[in-house]
Amino acid sequence: MLKINGRAYRKPTSPVVVICYDGCDPSYLADAFARRLSPTLARMAEGGYYASGLAAMPSFTNPNNISIVCGAPPSVHGISGNYWFDRETGAEVMMTDEVTLEAPTILATMAAAGVRVAAVTAKDKLRKALATGLNGSGPRGIAFSAQKAYECTVETNGISAEEAMGGATLPDQYSAELSLFVLDAGVRLLESDAADLIYLSLSDFVQHAYAPGAAESDDFIRQVDARVARLIELGATVGVVADHGMTDLSLADGTPNILYVAELLDTRFGVGRTRVICPITDPFVRHHGALGGFVRIHVLDDLPHEEVRDFASAIPGIHMALLRDEACRLFDLPPAREGDVTLVAAKGVALGVRRSWHNIDELAGARLRSHGSLAERDVPFIVSKPIRPEFLEQYGEKAPYNFDVFHFVLNGTVA
Amino acid sequence: MLKINGRAYRKPTSPVVVICYDGCDPSYLADAFARRLSPTLARMAEGGYYASGLAAMPSFTNPNNISIVCGAPPSVHGISGNYWFDRETGAEVMMTDEVTLEAPTILATMAAAGVRVAAVTAKDKLRKALATGLNGSGPRGIAFSAQKAYECTVETNGISAEEAMGGATLPDQYSAELSLFVLDAGVRLLESDAADLIYLSLSDFVQHAYAPGAAESDDFIRQVDARVARLIELGATVGVVADHGMTDLSLADGTPNILYVAELLDTRFGVGRTRVICPITDPFVRHHGALGGFVRIHVLDDLPHEEVRDFASAIPGIHMALLRDEACRLFDLPPAREGDVTLVAAKGVALGVRRSWHNIDELAGARLRSHGSLAERDVPFIVSKPIRPEFLEQYGEKAPYNFDVFHFVLNGTVA
Repeated sequence: MLKINGRAYRKPTSPVVVICYDGCDPSYLADAFARRLSPTLARMAEGGYYASGLAAMPSFTNPNNISIVCGAPPSVHGISGNYWFDRETGAEVMMTDEVTLEAPTILATMAAAGVRVAAVTAKDKLRKALATGLNGSGPRGIAFSAQKAYECTVETNGISAEEAMGGATLPDQYSAELSLFVLDAGVRLLESDAADLIYLSLSDFVQHAYAPGAAESDDFIRQVDARVARLIELGATVGVVADHGMTDLSLADGTPNILYVAELLDTRFGVGRTRVICPITDPFVRHHGALGGFVRIHVLDDLPHEEVRDFASAIPGIHMALLRDEACRLFDLPPAREGDVTLVAAKGVALGVRRSWHNIDELAGARLRSHGSLAERDVPFIVSKPIRPEFLEQYGEKAPYNFDVFHFVLNGTVA
Repeated sequence: MLKINGRAYRKPTSPVVVICYDGCDPSYLADAFARRLSPTLARMAEGGYYASGLAAMPSFTNPNNISIVCGAPPSVHGISGNYWFDRETGAEVMMTDEVTLEAPTILATMAAAGVRVAAVTAKDKLRKALATGLNGSGPRGIAFSAQKAYECTVETNGISAEEAMGGATLPDQYSAELSLFVLDAGVRLLESDAADLIYLSLSDFVQHAYAPGAAESDDFIRQVDARVARLIELGATVGVVADHGMTDLSLADGTPNILYVAELLDTRFGVGRTRVICPITDPFVRHHGALGGFVRIHVLDDLPHEEVRDFASAIPGIHMALLRDEACRLFDLPPAREGDVTLVAAKGVALGVRRSWHNIDELAGARLRSHGSLAERDVPFIVSKPIRPEFLEQYGEKAPYNFDVFHFVLNGTVA
């Protein structure tokens, strides 16, 4: 047993694969189940384990991926968004580029203990964080992204570019194929018996762009399902969770339903007194315009935080306005990176900074679908094998978090 | 002070109006606020009181309207749905027709204490329940519906048909005008100084049919707002809550995203062993096809309830599957009318009985928009005057329920 962030994990005795099905809102699977688009996941839910699980807050990609590989919430590992306002320096930085994880990952700890570990992500920015302790000086495991598979070296990624690409062509960064490439890489790693503990993290390109039932979404669900079937066929125990759900945030005519928080704060308190940070901000993602359901307000002068909180909580469309301590307590967030006031949007509402700051044209007329609020906190939690009732007892009536998935798959499955 | 269901209420010293803005999801108000469609509600939120409040579960019309006028959840008054399976007799009945409230209403208690009370509803079915203790043998207050305003008599409704109609023409049962008629009636009651405590309950016809930003929705929001402005102008303290929110439950091509629960149960356990009840069922409402986010399962033989719960909770799209005791504890529901297993849908998913039972053609090609789950539990809570901080202390950090609105308006406002 390996103790990681306060929890003891068994080493895998047979291949284990955990998939982060990025942006897989339960409403996709409900429809896929009803129309039998995803027979493998349905079989897993029926014969193995299914629960309506919870994502870490904010319901964004990076905090949840890091939570999953640490088996712990953001308060433990420190990554509570993609984008961060450094109060000390006044600089705005990408968290995954500039911030060091404050906790060991399950992947790195297992690798150090001799387990053959591999992590494959869609985007390279996430690979960097997930590979902490895996890649770098003396690789102890495999970690690469679909996006930069062609640049892999054994020294840096634990795998050659040739093996990483597996004869495939490089998929576009904004495509369904990027995620399928990740799953195919997982299949190849199992086929070549290259790893025993594999983490595969997809992209939510399809879910941002297409509602459940769209042909593109149906096709993606079918293709993901076929690859999960293959992983099981190859003998893997498979766990599937999502990092967050997805909600349509558009009005009837397709324009996004946005509250521009900085504009409202400036009108009320004056310009330059507060700074609004959208922690979903991601220079590589053009399909959500940095609009999501969760923003942080930093107060730049002596304006009482309570006044900002009270003002924000009286804006229809704001579900919660919380002082830092309360937000950290409620959502297990690291105080050092939390705003003075944290805003959670109501379901169906996007929070932005100011009109000029967001490039909504990037949506190219598509409806805004995004995440970050409590409405995208419910996520599927599926394991290909039954979970022992004795194991479940420690969770009681509580829904499991997506970041409990390694614990379930490694410790909870019937041997 | 009058003690009603465990809480002491002040009698109004000036006119008080509480409005149930049926189906007013926070996403409508966020957009209306941003585009200044509802300046009166915005002014109330800024200068009076606004909170993101909670609806009683299930997030349906009748349980919430009754909760609001009782100032208490369904466990106290017994109305936990529109439609009910009577375990004793095996009959399915409309709750508001057949069931007697188990608790006094604020309206009736105030009327008995000499306060001039009036209740106006859109639909007549709801009027019957809300008028408990107001109409009937010796009316002690005014209670009528827009739908049957032309049938009013002083003996039955406390108001003549002529006064109830106010020279207006009868609006169609399926129209925005039905709700506006209710608000106009409230304005006339204030203008003629006929009541000091007024409850106005609208219809969610518009919200079921139109997403935020649709021209029909914008127009409705503007018209409601103008009438709220007039109520305030006439000197009323106004509280506005919704009975529930509203979510789009359709797939990309417009077909509803439905799990037919009885079909799934029959396939798993055999035909005739369970009965599925959709408590949103309403023979007068054709725009949601009796589809919502909350159903009850009654087990008809010795099938263990836990088995049904475990099976249902492993269906993607089911957010919660709860045994009766757990459902009642979690949602303050009356055990006598709860199912053996209670299902709450995931956001974006509709729960139905079986394909043949629902007439989806009634949607006439429109997208299914409905409610019932936790995704429609967040509702606006707005008061036209500030609430005293000392009053708020008793609520602590908890969000108020919509059924706290009379308490807030009568006891909490600055005199």
